[in-house]
Amino acid sequence: MTKETKPILYNFYRSSASYRVRIALAWKGIDYEYRAIDISTGMQKSEEYVKLNPSAKVPLFITKEGNILSQTVAILEYLDNVYPDRPMMPREAFTAAQVRSIVQVIACDIHPLQNTGVLEQKWGSDMEKKTECASYWIAKGFTGLEQMLAKTAGTYCVGDHITMADMFLAPMVTNAHRWKVDMKPFPIITRISDTLMTLPEFSQAHPTNQPDYPEELKTSA
Amino acid sequence: MTKETKPILYNFYRSSASYRVRIALAWKGIDYEYRAIDISTGMQKSEEYVKLNPSAKVPLFITKEGNILSQTVAILEYLDNVYPDRPMMPREAFTAAQVRSIVQVIACDIHPLQNTGVLEQKWGSDMEKKTECASYWIAKGFTGLEQMLAKTAGTYCVGDHITMADMFLAPMVTNAHRWKVDMKPFPIITRISDTLMTLPEFSQAHPTNQPDYPEELKTSA
Repeated sequence: MTKETKPILYNFYRSSASYRVRIALAWKGIDYEYRAIDISTGMQKSEEYVKLNPSAKVPLFITKEGNILSQTVAILEYLDNVYPDRPMMPREAFTAAQVRSIVQVIACDIHPLQNTGVLEQKWGSDMEKKTECASYWIAKGFTGLEQMLAKTAGTYCVGDHITMADMFLAPMVTNAHRWKVDMKPFPIITRISDTLMTLPEFSQAHPTNQPDYPEELKTSA
Repeated sequence: MTKETKPILYNFYRSSASYRVRIALAWKGIDYEYRAIDISTGMQKSEEYVKLNPSAKVPLFITKEGNILSQTVAILEYLDNVYPDRPMMPREAFTAAQVRSIVQVIACDIHPLQNTGVLEQKWGSDMEKKTECASYWIAKGFTGLEQMLAKTAGTYCVGDHITMADMFLAPMVTNAHRWKVDMKPFPIITRISDTLMTLPEFSQAHPTNQPDYPEELKTSA
């Protein structure tokens, strides 16, 4: 008899990449163990964690069979293959490609350039410079994304069904707010992300609803 | 009777993202029209091109039905769905996730930080600074990638079959050479990319074998 184990998600409440995986797990109704990695104290660089994830990044997902995955696109595609209920990807090839295009714009063209590690390598603890740099890249990326969504969006990023694209969009909008991006030029992005935040799978996965969200921030809210 | 049209690839000989798509098209044996966009002269920002691709980047792929795709991961996944012969993705879900992890490490963790547009925004035309910055991020990314490949590689990135991961690796190694990255710490990456370059699909897609590769570089080689 083999012991049934839960998948594990090593993650950080504020990490937008972690947030994507939390949404997908909620969407699929997968019970998992939450293990907090505090990247604000460098916990992701600890010897123990680097053994699991040589890239020293969050999130890290361990399947119930004990297999390790560290890239959010790979994790979400995997979950969609292994847990086919409530699909996150359209069946039709070109529509799926539109979803993957939006995912990649956010994951490759926007996220890496406003990422904590990258900003710190460049600006250290200069919060003003980091905000300026992060908001520049997010706004630049959102400008192209808004035009893509003008062609693909219905209620959500691509038509009227939730897809992986929405699970990448909502966390990036949360980051945009954090970095004080002026959202007025992006009405479609704003409308979709407002709608997404009314869904329990998205709101429950939000940084403020995680077990490692700091007490002191809760009381000041 | 509808006219049979070829897919079109807007691309640039030196662009490593373009190079990925050229390999995939060669791998699948798909005949296509090559349209050169010279990003060294800013042709990607022309009004005509931006109408097609608001992100003002290469590559841009137009399917034979006239549908437009601009992200390489989306293009390669689309090609694999629509042209199923010679698959670029393993069938087994976790092995496919390993391929996608390697793809994303290259596409998201390495590529954006050594990308021409990003380097120029930061360093202008200072070639020494650009080389230093690009080689820092490539070497940092390759350090994690080498450890991933230690677990997944056979003859190629994941086992003994060519996958999408190889089509992302070879162009990034070409960039690493261009930015003078010391490859000694990366024996697995080097071995795999050397093997890949013996395959016609990879070598024919190389920057030096494209119609827009400059004459003056040919004669100096």
